[in-house]
Amino acid sequence: MPMPTESQADKKPRRARAKPAAPGADPAVVPPAPAVPLPDLPQQGQARAVIDAVLPQVDAGRFAVKRVVGEALDVTAHVFTDGHDKVRARLCWRKEGSGAWQEAEMQAEGNDVWSARCTPDAQGRWRYTVCAWVDHFQSWRAELVRRVDLADILIAARVGAELVRQAAERAEGEDRSRLAGLAENLRSRAEQAGRATIAEMDSVSQEVASIKAAALSEDLAALADRWPDRRHAVWWSEEGLPLVVDRERAAFSTWYEMFPRSAALEEGRHGTFKDVQARLPYVAAMGFDVLYLPPIHPIGRARRKGRNNTLVAQEGDVGSPWAIGADEGGHKDVLPALGTMDDFRELVRAANALGIELALDIAFQCAPDHPYVKAHPDWFRKRPDGSVQYAENPPKKYQDIYPFDFETPDWQAMWLELKSVFDHWIAQGVRIFRVDNPHTKAFAFWEWVIGAVKAEHPDVLFLAEAFTRPKVMHRLAKLGFSQSYTYFTWRNNRHELMEYFEELAHGPGKDYYRPNAWPNTPDILNEHLHHGPRSIFMARLVLAATLSASYGIYGPPYELLQGEPVKPGSEEYMDSEKYQIRHWGELTLDRPDSIAGFIATVNRIRKEHAALHSNATLRFFDTSNPYLIAYAKRDPAGGEAVITVVNIDATFTQTGWVHVDAAWLGVQGGSFVAHDLLTDQSFAWQDGGNFVMLVPSQMPAHVIEVRGNA
Amino acid sequence: MPMPTESQADKKPRRARAKPAAPGADPAVVPPAPAVPLPDLPQQGQARAVIDAVLPQVDAGRFAVKRVVGEALDVTAHVFTDGHDKVRARLCWRKEGSGAWQEAEMQAEGNDVWSARCTPDAQGRWRYTVCAWVDHFQSWRAELVRRVDLADILIAARVGAELVRQAAERAEGEDRSRLAGLAENLRSRAEQAGRATIAEMDSVSQEVASIKAAALSEDLAALADRWPDRRHAVWWSEEGLPLVVDRERAAFSTWYEMFPRSAALEEGRHGTFKDVQARLPYVAAMGFDVLYLPPIHPIGRARRKGRNNTLVAQEGDVGSPWAIGADEGGHKDVLPALGTMDDFRELVRAANALGIELALDIAFQCAPDHPYVKAHPDWFRKRPDGSVQYAENPPKKYQDIYPFDFETPDWQAMWLELKSVFDHWIAQGVRIFRVDNPHTKAFAFWEWVIGAVKAEHPDVLFLAEAFTRPKVMHRLAKLGFSQSYTYFTWRNNRHELMEYFEELAHGPGKDYYRPNAWPNTPDILNEHLHHGPRSIFMARLVLAATLSASYGIYGPPYELLQGEPVKPGSEEYMDSEKYQIRHWGELTLDRPDSIAGFIATVNRIRKEHAALHSNATLRFFDTSNPYLIAYAKRDPAGGEAVITVVNIDATFTQTGWVHVDAAWLGVQGGSFVAHDLLTDQSFAWQDGGNFVMLVPSQMPAHVIEVRGNA
Repeated sequence: MPMPTESQADKKPRRARAKPAAPGADPAVVPPAPAVPLPDLPQQGQARAVIDAVLPQVDAGRFAVKRVVGEALDVTAHVFTDGHDKVRARLCWRKEGSGAWQEAEMQAEGNDVWSARCTPDAQGRWRYTVCAWVDHFQSWRAELVRRVDLADILIAARVGAELVRQAAERAEGEDRSRLAGLAENLRSRAEQAGRATIAEMDSVSQEVASIKAAALSEDLAALADRWPDRRHAVWWSEEGLPLVVDRERAAFSTWYEMFPRSAALEEGRHGTFKDVQARLPYVAAMGFDVLYLPPIHPIGRARRKGRNNTLVAQEGDVGSPWAIGADEGGHKDVLPALGTMDDFRELVRAANALGIELALDIAFQCAPDHPYVKAHPDWFRKRPDGSVQYAENPPKKYQDIYPFDFETPDWQAMWLELKSVFDHWIAQGVRIFRVDNPHTKAFAFWEWVIGAVKAEHPDVLFLAEAFTRPKVMHRLAKLGFSQSYTYFTWRNNRHELMEYFEELAHGPGKDYYRPNAWPNTPDILNEHLHHGPRSIFMARLVLAATLSASYGIYGPPYELLQGEPVKPGSEEYMDSEKYQIRHWGELTLDRPDSIAGFIATVNRIRKEHAALHSNATLRFFDTSNPYLIAYAKRDPAGGEAVITVVNIDATFTQTGWVHVDAAWLGVQGGSFVAHDLLTDQSFAWQDGGNFVMLVPSQMPAHVIEVRGNA
Repeated sequence: MPMPTESQADKKPRRARAKPAAPGADPAVVPPAPAVPLPDLPQQGQARAVIDAVLPQVDAGRFAVKRVVGEALDVTAHVFTDGHDKVRARLCWRKEGSGAWQEAEMQAEGNDVWSARCTPDAQGRWRYTVCAWVDHFQSWRAELVRRVDLADILIAARVGAELVRQAAERAEGEDRSRLAGLAENLRSRAEQAGRATIAEMDSVSQEVASIKAAALSEDLAALADRWPDRRHAVWWSEEGLPLVVDRERAAFSTWYEMFPRSAALEEGRHGTFKDVQARLPYVAAMGFDVLYLPPIHPIGRARRKGRNNTLVAQEGDVGSPWAIGADEGGHKDVLPALGTMDDFRELVRAANALGIELALDIAFQCAPDHPYVKAHPDWFRKRPDGSVQYAENPPKKYQDIYPFDFETPDWQAMWLELKSVFDHWIAQGVRIFRVDNPHTKAFAFWEWVIGAVKAEHPDVLFLAEAFTRPKVMHRLAKLGFSQSYTYFTWRNNRHELMEYFEELAHGPGKDYYRPNAWPNTPDILNEHLHHGPRSIFMARLVLAATLSASYGIYGPPYELLQGEPVKPGSEEYMDSEKYQIRHWGELTLDRPDSIAGFIATVNRIRKEHAALHSNATLRFFDTSNPYLIAYAKRDPAGGEAVITVVNIDATFTQTGWVHVDAAWLGVQGGSFVAHDLLTDQSFAWQDGGNFVMLVPSQMPAHVIEVRGNA
């Protein structure tokens, strides 16, 4: 059907016909023809419905809202018209490129707000919009309900008969004849009754009541509503608002980062893809479903950094994997010491067989000996002496890294080549990319490359590794990154955590910013972990795993409780794997110096509880002790809620009251069994305050399944 | 200059060149050419600046922001780029139809928020947008500040010399030669110093420091900043966001409504325009600058309503002025009993001479005997019996009113005719229209007609008389009404008033919804005024006059303390002027049964204090007594602040503490003279709590001028 829109009305005006002077006009005072031409009239002046404030939307449709397959999109809009007439509205959605809109009737929620839900069932780009119209049948019906005067009811019945007859003309199949029959019946009865004399008033009163009842029948209303008159419908926009639908792992994922070169069981040997493959059962046993590897490419030799980031490498130093490129190749090649491309593909396959996806690090920068530097000198900035400009942040210099110049006149070729890096690894079976420092490359490039890759492979996901200013991180999420790192690592006290995760779950980014919370990374050993007790590693892991539907750790240092910084107050690890090979020995769930078994428990709880698969329902609860943080999430599909309580002090025992809202948790009657999934203990809890004691040396957290009524 | 925009980049993609395989690519694993074509590249991939969240804006530019001439428009935007480079941004604005943008450099406010101000100096439609670019000169300069290595400084000086040389090429006039000279000087000194030997280190150190100082000179920076390289600038939007600039009365106006037919001095005579003219000095003495008259057109005789809205008029009943149209004419004619069109024009002139503008009521509806009904039967809906559909809201019927059918197929002719009603009265000198129940006519019509009228007459103002649901009232304000009635009449306790005016001043409508607060109208005699004491009329007037920059009263009933409803609990006046002529006698400022003198004082205070000319600075203060409401407004131009304290009980004496924020009020040192402009008393006030006692029988309010330091 044609879809005139409000904005369309503005764009394609039609010249109005000139009209003779209206009656009543005094020729003496009619103003002279104005110097400006008569203003243009809109295309469709009879369209009286108004649609305003369609939500969700990101910057008025400039960017896409994000959902995953099977996740509901709840849309609201303000819909109304002039006067007392009734409006109807429909939510319309379709996959980009597909023909017809699917439609769902919107419901009035009061205060002119209307809502409906759709649940896109496939990955890719979708569009949604709202259509509304003044519904003459419903307007007529709403007025008829309130009519009491006999003559008025009979007139109204005849008006209604005509509306039903018109609906019949629009209808198809059986509806058409049924509506036509009802219209004729209504018309003839109303006309017949209208001919009655005053003497026949009593019997006519009964007949009028019967006609009114027939006209108001629910059957007729349902029939007529199926064939509305939408000639004067308005559309929020013709093209609709954009929606990106990803697979579920975009919203709910559990990441493990490790350096392949440290994966050898024997001390002193450079780890390989085969060693990583041997570690897969361990990673799977811990419950991770994404295994993220730092760059696996040839590492530059020129100006290579030594251990602990010293300026000059010693013989045998392996360098930083982020100094990409050497004689052996660049971003599409593997470091020979790790193995072959065949080994890599075998690793991908073996991981997938265990339910683990491999995520690769994409760091668009070059070591001085990267082949690009010779092949495409114009992709890099030059210094006056003709040398290539290295990365710097004066007075700091990073002479081992050449950044791409995104202002190069050859930008089109460079963009296409960089995209081909993604294409290359996608061809090897990779579907998740962790992008290194995207905020130091042009935003327009990311928007294009993510859109281009996802157009061909809608299942590809991108994690933005940007730990920078809020507006910048939000822009990256808006322009297309599937997930984003967060400030979680630096949010440690209760107030900080509550404020930040409240914002992430319910703030302006809720429809496009998908947080991925990490208690550590190879770059960030937060001071709270410096020489911290086992319990702080457990507490921070529980926070990340339950506050955020996606989270990750950098292991084995995390599960092995590594907390020694390179110097006091630094966030860099001592003997960081970024610059050297580390030996972690045999890794098992039950090593006494490891919390791997605990991690396995937490990740199993996450998998089994749909409440933890999204952040949309996050709600914090008051506690009487600032070292106790408490919050819950509900399963949007109606399953059990999960309450988490963490002792964030993690050194000393903390006790206090946690004030829960039982009704919000879905509990009938106010009391319930609080079953701690970490310890398998059960407590009798109730609406309001519940006493909690968390002894760090035993277990610094409760992760509580809310079980029915106590 | 060309203005590529972000959205433009999306719309006009360019096909990328195919490129040979990049070095390092392993031919064996290069993916096959994808089935989907290569994605389109944007137009201007080298543009790296990002502009986000330009504010203010109304629905992403779908509707205009409103200001008055001389009122500042403060614009903020998020502006940033990738990496460490410096960005610059400019606010750009221009009158619609004019050629070049005016520009103002935006300032960084922190957190990537930038701001600038413009102050449009003429009525009409304007546009504004934001332009930003990565500034290589400023980036270079910011890095140079932090450089310490001698060789680095000399390299940087040569880089800078080249940037300054390029600026010289863009520059004009004297700037061009100055920049060229500075560039050459920098280049030659840096090259010379770079040739020094290690033996000359000491003297070179001094020279390098001197070169660095010269490169960083403020003079050079100011010069270079004037000639930025904007080849890769981005624009928020090419067309800009819309801004409607009105004359000052759109924001600050003082309204008096009266029925001309009750203006006769002698009892029993039908008032005339000449009688109204005789009342002008009284209205002017009270300080009103808008005199609003209910419809002045011929009044229908068919189904005319009688006194107190009785269904059947008696002989001599004058009918409701809103039942427009009779044999004598319609919306472009005057009721003969009021006088002639010449009398009307004379009234307009006389009012203007006293600083008063006449506002006319535009009620687009017809009495059954309006000439339109015969001339344009297709502009009205028909009932099945062929009669014209009267207004109704079942079971209520308004058989004296025929509404226009905005779905008529002849809508174009009808819209043009209705517009010509405005044109007609504009030709008589009218520039303000109070539009009756706009929410019962099509919204698209209002948007068109207001835009069309203002395109020819930007000084015309429209007040929307819609007392309806919030979303509807907001839509009318968005689509173009200059002012809007409010819920003030029904906001009586402190909490209600604070919540509502907080929303009006600082809520989502602050840039388009200009409130006009009325303590009464001919339709609304709020129950708080029923038989109320003199003090409640005074208190409600002070609230309206100080909370809202525009306010009005329906007089003479208001100043004459009329509070008798037609029946208990009704909001209708007893013996309402809507249906009959009333006799008010001689009106003076000092009549003992009138608060006209008090009103004159309040309106004089309003005129003399710029703080009361806007709502943008409204701030409520805490009080210790819920019957005391306190708030202040500041003069945006730095004049005195005005504090208002009202006893809203208005029957009993109320005492309590008012907690003011002296610094916010512009007071140095914490204490100040609180000069009550109503009573001419002065009090010593201070930051924090101040004791207040308001005795209703004397004066139910303070309107306090904050006078310097005590």
